[in-house]
Amino acid sequence: MGATLALSQRGVGRTGPNPPVGCVIVRDGRVIGRGWTQPGGRPHAEAMALAQADQDARGATAYVTLEPCAHDSSRGPACAASLITAGIARVVVAAGDPDTRTNGKGLAKLAAAGISLVTGVRCPEAEAIMAGFFSRQRRRRPHITLKLAVSLDGSVAMTSGESKWITGDRARAHAHLERARADMILVGRGTLDADSPRLDVRLEGLEDRAPIIAVMSSTPAPDGLRHLRDLQALAAVTDADTVLAEGGAALASSLVAADLVDRLLLYRAPILVGGRPALAAIGLANLADAHGRWAPAAVIALGTDRLETYHRIR
Amino acid sequence: MGATLALSQRGVGRTGPNPPVGCVIVRDGRVIGRGWTQPGGRPHAEAMALAQADQDARGATAYVTLEPCAHDSSRGPACAASLITAGIARVVVAAGDPDTRTNGKGLAKLAAAGISLVTGVRCPEAEAIMAGFFSRQRRRRPHITLKLAVSLDGSVAMTSGESKWITGDRARAHAHLERARADMILVGRGTLDADSPRLDVRLEGLEDRAPIIAVMSSTPAPDGLRHLRDLQALAAVTDADTVLAEGGAALASSLVAADLVDRLLLYRAPILVGGRPALAAIGLANLADAHGRWAPAAVIALGTDRLETYHRIR
Repeated sequence: MGATLALSQRGVGRTGPNPPVGCVIVRDGRVIGRGWTQPGGRPHAEAMALAQADQDARGATAYVTLEPCAHDSSRGPACAASLITAGIARVVVAAGDPDTRTNGKGLAKLAAAGISLVTGVRCPEAEAIMAGFFSRQRRRRPHITLKLAVSLDGSVAMTSGESKWITGDRARAHAHLERARADMILVGRGTLDADSPRLDVRLEGLEDRAPIIAVMSSTPAPDGLRHLRDLQALAAVTDADTVLAEGGAALASSLVAADLVDRLLLYRAPILVGGRPALAAIGLANLADAHGRWAPAAVIALGTDRLETYHRIR
Repeated sequence: MGATLALSQRGVGRTGPNPPVGCVIVRDGRVIGRGWTQPGGRPHAEAMALAQADQDARGATAYVTLEPCAHDSSRGPACAASLITAGIARVVVAAGDPDTRTNGKGLAKLAAAGISLVTGVRCPEAEAIMAGFFSRQRRRRPHITLKLAVSLDGSVAMTSGESKWITGDRARAHAHLERARADMILVGRGTLDADSPRLDVRLEGLEDRAPIIAVMSSTPAPDGLRHLRDLQALAAVTDADTVLAEGGAALASSLVAADLVDRLLLYRAPILVGGRPALAAIGLANLADAHGRWAPAAVIALGTDRLETYHRIR
């Protein structure tokens, strides 16, 4: 399943409206098929892996990061049916599919066909990779990541507004990778006007990853940018399951105040600035209420900077 | 030398005006004497270790974290002479003594007596443990540590001023340990008046560690507190080699702006606050000038909080 989860990440940011799924087919200890959801959402991971395995799939085990879909679509047959037809003997699943068209039905079809099932294997990791899809299905809104590039004292810029650069090359390259993995990049109007950021993906080989670029503003957005009037408009976005909010402090604070941030990416440089803080008021009633909301995930070194990731836990 | 360095730490914060030195005497692979500078600075580490080793010191090796002193004092004989008299055959030294009364003379005396010498062993660690002494000798000012307890976004309090608590029990207990290791605790007038902090050491067994408590203020200090009018007064402090600056933001910013901070202790809680920033303006000309000043040392977990230590590198 570890290899299957890794494979599934190839599709992150490119598979909308479908989730980025991975599938590995193993027979007699050998991998005979590998698939991941292709750009635009089709073919599904199972279809790609089954095509590679071809006749050898008979009697094999399929590892898949999401419950195989149960519903036929104009864009292709249901994966549960394809696995049955191919003669797969055993299916190992990470996460159940919350989509009501499949939810449990995919597994039921496989079981009815006599296929041996193991479910829930490394489910939290699978759900994290497909966070946008799960957010959409369960909460009817995109999964929102807030990115902050800060000094040790929490400044995102000097008081003059100078913000180039707090973090170094490697941290900024990593932030571009995060852009490539997002369906939509969101900035506040102030940041757009003050910094005119180029919100593209500047990583060799990934230049074609072009997330939707949105600006939150009470006034119309410049040509080519999606306009979101307010936070409610964000919840109403239907063509992006993952949003990367890049600043500035007003946008960041409003997202935190509205409890809309699911993941926090903190790029930290070992410098002191004494400048503009990362967040303005977030409507906190008292300090006790600030605790118990964020769990740390991995910390990675990016040159002399560090990236800390936090996940919402309540 | 590792054991000797560890031993030397027992004296940190209690040995003024002398540095906290450690000494271990080894003969035939067995430790026969262990000493560390006693409260008030005497006996010296070597005297304590030699007393334990007694007659067995003849032909033994002495590990010592600082060059043995060469000058007799009304408070006791010079350690170089004592080591020679005891018949020590070999001395391993971490750091040279910058005090002009000893600087090189201690080693020269040992060498002249036919004692075998090894110097510079784990010198940076020894100098870090005796940082206050080295600062006093080399720069004629105390070694200054700035402690900040911050949220992920760099807030030290809510905008209301509420600051209890950003960090948890374990982080606060660690901060008390840092107090015990300091000669002087320094706060700004605003923090003193607003928070009336109890600046004592509240750790079982360490309650008697009572650093000097100083307040930086343009107006006279309350009874029982040392009064420092400004940063120049700090440089003129002569009875404290290590200072722990505890806040608030005005004091912290003025210390950083004057480039007086040698070590930064950053207690970080995994919370977002959007409140008062840790630092106000620090007189930075541009962001480039902020870089390359701080090197990270150990990161330790204190419950859900983390303590990051940074050392000045320029």
